Amino acid sequence: VKLLSLARDLQRRRARERESYFVVEGVRAVEELLASSLRVRGVLVAPQLAAAPRGAALLEALRNDSKGRDYPIAEISEQEFQGASATESPQGVLAIARIPEHSFDSIKTPSRILVLDGLQDPGNVGTILRTAAALGVSATVALPGTVDLWNAKVVRGAMGAHFRHVAFHASVNALQRYLTEHHIPLWAADSRGEPLDTVRATLPEASRLAIAVGNEGAGLSPEVSMFAARTVALPIDGVESLNVAVATGIILYELRA
Amino acid sequence: VKLLSLARDLQRRRARERESYFVVEGVRAVEELLASSLRVRGVLVAPQLAAAPRGAALLEALRNDSKGRDYPIAEISEQEFQGASATESPQGVLAIARIPEHSFDSIKTPSRILVLDGLQDPGNVGTILRTAAALGVSATVALPGTVDLWNAKVVRGAMGAHFRHVAFHASVNALQRYLTEHHIPLWAADSRGEPLDTVRATLPEASRLAIAVGNEGAGLSPEVSMFAARTVALPIDGVESLNVAVATGIILYELRA
Repeated sequence: VKLLSLARDLQRRRARERESYFVVEGVRAVEELLASSLRVRGVLVAPQLAAAPRGAALLEALRNDSKGRDYPIAEISEQEFQGASATESPQGVLAIARIPEHSFDSIKTPSRILVLDGLQDPGNVGTILRTAAALGVSATVALPGTVDLWNAKVVRGAMGAHFRHVAFHASVNALQRYLTEHHIPLWAADSRGEPLDTVRATLPEASRLAIAVGNEGAGLSPEVSMFAARTVALPIDGVESLNVAVATGIILYELRA
Repeated sequence: VKLLSLARDLQRRRARERESYFVVEGVRAVEELLASSLRVRGVLVAPQLAAAPRGAALLEALRNDSKGRDYPIAEISEQEFQGASATESPQGVLAIARIPEHSFDSIKTPSRILVLDGLQDPGNVGTILRTAAALGVSATVALPGTVDLWNAKVVRGAMGAHFRHVAFHASVNALQRYLTEHHIPLWAADSRGEPLDTVRATLPEASRLAIAVGNEGAGLSPEVSMFAARTVALPIDGVESLNVAVATGIILYELRA
């Protein structure tokens, strides 16, 4: 019951920030959580989980955590579960896990750093975290105005990516300080920028780079724009625009280390 | 009232196929519809539309169609509107438009052709149509097993892209016949394929190319796999995978004409 009210509470960003816990829901996401080394506070399970073979296997894996973690597993009714769930047809499993305490210090050997400047759509941010992890980005830094990285929809969209990938919130000042100290230039994506191909040709081999992408509608903030050494644009048909997760994917791929 | 029941009916794929109409909902999407040359069967408007300045401007534009189209505009109650709407907080405008009768004959000068092989997530397909239009793809062909291109969620995700971009459903046989006749090779995206960079280097300048992407979970169908001249893979971190819309964006960008 205490776990259930904590899970409900964690639907709000302020509660997540205060408690340093977030919610992982669904079979696939909880499987990813078990494969990660994140700390688990507890798990809520509803009867429908054991009905599916994959769910039953997960329940077994939870009861014998392969990393030796020890946490309570509370069995609750389908109706109680619904109250804590963020999905329409819950699969009946929800874990509460510790938010990793990442900061600039967590970046061991920076190669590419992705900066999210005020991205608000949780689906986009989840997809972007998944992309950053897959393309070998060293860390993703979320600036103020960006949706909480531990929001349930972001976690779902990321499919476990930031259980492993270094991702955290930081201020513009802290970012500037870090990049300056480590001599890492910032390039920013902006539809009025120079063509990506032209700018990419100037990128020295084995160089380090931070790449900023802006809000879905408003684009980059003035602070980030002004701090950027270059701004890059994708050459697209004037009438259309790209989804920000797709644009970020193309830019990260083109500028990969 | 007739428009209202038609709009409700068109939530089902079979009704869309029978009637050759689809539904366009929301201020932004209906603005895109007005800017296109698609035929409009009628528009449903609820009181909340006129309350917002942009909505009021749209209402004015509907009443004086700049392309001289003539269609009924039915004013209905907020509650009636809710019954036809596919969104949780409807903006109060919904148009019924003719599905463009596209086929392989609509492709005038093929350069890049995108093939969707069994993609099922409407959000992904909408984002992909938007990407294809922005990156200058000549046409998008949806093979059997792919979600209906005129599904409301696809239309919303595409943000009007396929009001202009040539996109249609076709059989694998028809696709093979067209590609063979026009000497257009098919390359397919598959995680077990050759690295994209390697394959791209073999692409002759000014050549024509079809590119197939497969289902989110199951990948390509055997027919498409076997017909493909090459299969290409994105070099990604083994643990992670890319969202199919992001992967398609990267491949279309890398292989653009």
